[in-house]
Amino acid sequence: MAMDRPGLGVIEDGVIASRDGRIAFVGAAADLPAGADAVETIALDGRWVTPGLVDCHTHIVYADNRAAEWEMRLDGAAYEAIARAGGGIVSSVRSVRATSEDALVTQALGRVDRLIAEGVTTLESKSGYGLDLAQEMKLLRAGRTIAEKRRLRALTSFLGAHALPPEAEGDRDAYMDLVCTTMLPAVAEAGLADAVDAFCESIAFSPDQVARLFTAAQALGLPVKLHADQLTNGGGAALAARFGALSADHLEYTDDAGAAAMAAAGTVAVLLPGAYYVLREKKAPDVAAFRRHGVPIAVSTDCNPGTSPLTSLLLTMHMAATLFGLTVHEALLGTTREAARALGKFDDIGSLETGKACDLAIWSVGHPAEIFHNLGSNPLHSRVFAGEPG
Amino acid sequence: MAMDRPGLGVIEDGVIASRDGRIAFVGAAADLPAGADAVETIALDGRWVTPGLVDCHTHIVYADNRAAEWEMRLDGAAYEAIARAGGGIVSSVRSVRATSEDALVTQALGRVDRLIAEGVTTLESKSGYGLDLAQEMKLLRAGRTIAEKRRLRALTSFLGAHALPPEAEGDRDAYMDLVCTTMLPAVAEAGLADAVDAFCESIAFSPDQVARLFTAAQALGLPVKLHADQLTNGGGAALAARFGALSADHLEYTDDAGAAAMAAAGTVAVLLPGAYYVLREKKAPDVAAFRRHGVPIAVSTDCNPGTSPLTSLLLTMHMAATLFGLTVHEALLGTTREAARALGKFDDIGSLETGKACDLAIWSVGHPAEIFHNLGSNPLHSRVFAGEPG
Ligand SMILES: [Zn+2]
Ligand SMILES: [Zn+2]
Repeated sequence: MAMDRPGLGVIEDGVIASRDGRIAFVGAAADLPAGADAVETIALDGRWVTPGLVDCHTHIVYADNRAAEWEMRLDGAAYEAIARAGGGIVSSVRSVRATSEDALVTQALGRVDRLIAEGVTTLESKSGYGLDLAQEMKLLRAGRTIAEKRRLRALTSFLGAHALPPEAEGDRDAYMDLVCTTMLPAVAEAGLADAVDAFCESIAFSPDQVARLFTAAQALGLPVKLHADQLTNGGGAALAARFGALSADHLEYTDDAGAAAMAAAGTVAVLLPGAYYVLREKKAPDVAAFRRHGVPIAVSTDCNPGTSPLTSLLLTMHMAATLFGLTVHEALLGTTREAARALGKFDDIGSLETGKACDLAIWSVGHPAEIFHNLGSNPLHSRVFAGEPG
Repeated sequence: MAMDRPGLGVIEDGVIASRDGRIAFVGAAADLPAGADAVETIALDGRWVTPGLVDCHTHIVYADNRAAEWEMRLDGAAYEAIARAGGGIVSSVRSVRATSEDALVTQALGRVDRLIAEGVTTLESKSGYGLDLAQEMKLLRAGRTIAEKRRLRALTSFLGAHALPPEAEGDRDAYMDLVCTTMLPAVAEAGLADAVDAFCESIAFSPDQVARLFTAAQALGLPVKLHADQLTNGGGAALAARFGALSADHLEYTDDAGAAAMAAAGTVAVLLPGAYYVLREKKAPDVAAFRRHGVPIAVSTDCNPGTSPLTSLLLTMHMAATLFGLTVHEALLGTTREAARALGKFDDIGSLETGKACDLAIWSVGHPAEIFHNLGSNPLHSRVFAGEPG
């Protein structure tokens, strides 16, 4: 193996020791302290070990698929016709509101299990299909429940500013007022959100509206992140950077100045190739600008029923390489180290370092590129979560 | 359900009866002949049934992956550097020649099992990584062996004219002479090929060289098919049509005249979006021209180690819809009816009709679009092969 590339920090013939769910030693077998004694040892027979994968941007808690809407789009239906037929985010809002919290959890777990099968050990999920206080709380609680039902770290982001609910009757300022003065404080008080997110786009919320939300979030001590510059360059990346956001996500239209601002602020670029692919977008994010400025690049499924019905982080990594030009190493770091950073959790997960959670993905491959080179195949051998296999 | 679209022929509340592995009745339950008696009945509880899927263009028998070459390409290595490092088709030739027939079968079965898990019941595989008589025969025998090891119909195509082997030292005419006068007759004599295929492209064989091969194949009673117009418009579609080929495959650069010729000849257009995606091609096949002229459109994985390391026919259907603009119904017909036609087997498989093989895919979905709408998920409930579940 050897340290053949910058970034990955490959250790040949390595050993990882875990105690109380945390990494107690990681390094070459030759460097294992003399007298180290293990209660239990697992031989990995030359397999590769990475940190457990981190899916840092999902809308995985939802009800009902939107395959019919997709079929209409493939048949050439215009956006308006689909909206008239009840499609779009609002259709997911309708179905979430009509679905019990338990049923939401059950539906989400089917999807979560597919991510777990590919080595995911940490998952972020957003609200944003409720759009009133009770429904948003339901989504956030469901997101947290995932970690009780499965061996997985679950983080939640409050995305009340995802879209305008029907009852807002087109008044974006009034709805943002409700989000900032009623929903957000209640969500924070209940401790249901690890971060606050918003959709900054001409078809969603303006930079001024988002700035108001971010100011309120920070007053409550909550970190922020942003859906930015997906369909147009609305200055979302710079806005996110101005607030020291954990991440700015999508970024297809982010320009050089936006990338520079993100680098200065330490804001992670979360790339979401699944949505780019499904929406048949033509403009890919300017990865060269992120590299030039040293912006950390993460990669995530964006799992959602409309624009990215995607529960394979391996396929997502392949798309990040093929559609956005990431290298194999960037894609691997994008679902481990940088994804952890995008969640503000790099002190705890995302790399194999002493003291961090012992979350591992073990791969039956001869080389890291084989982890996601084959489309439709899954070389995961097994997971370790908090030091325990399975 | 109802017959809500042309083409699929949806039957609501349907019944399929099988006898001796063949469909004895298919239709609405209400139309089941009075007195019909079944030895065994399987209730499908409202699930959807399609013909077993047909993957009609694969190079699935190969040794060793080419992930390292792919990583070099992502790192920006030029084609020449990759060739110098031993990459490309020739690297697969080298590894196939060094691998025993048994080992080839074992490696292929790992991939075949992933296709079976998605409802595939018929699979075509090509030679073309041997490039001498003994090695091509080995690949074709391995392709046939798949059907002995798994419950699957396996068809083989002789693709000796895939690339130039190193020992040909650049002499394409001399190698094509060997293919036509030595390899092809021996393969035909051994009964190892169901069709003869070739790669017609500026970097492979010329239309004249292919015409010579096709003439020889037809003299031996073997149908032909062609890798055509993938990277340039070399008149491959028209050439295939002139020989009444079962199919012309890839077709990114096929023009209107080519499509018209294919329609007149009944040659199926086999689209391979996996290779298009992996190679980051920009020009998609002119699907509108195929529709206009009434060319049957099939869809296949093109499973191969270099340009389409893909063992998911469901993902392939999604790519055909997303990247090439096929409708859901076209993608479903493209992996059943039209894929069967591309193999010259539509009298036996590819649709649910009395007398045909009872090969079924049973799907836990509420609507056909859900069969492949979710990326990374597999809604197959079970298969039926030759009338037997499993
Ligand atoms: Zn999102
Ligand atoms: Zn091919």
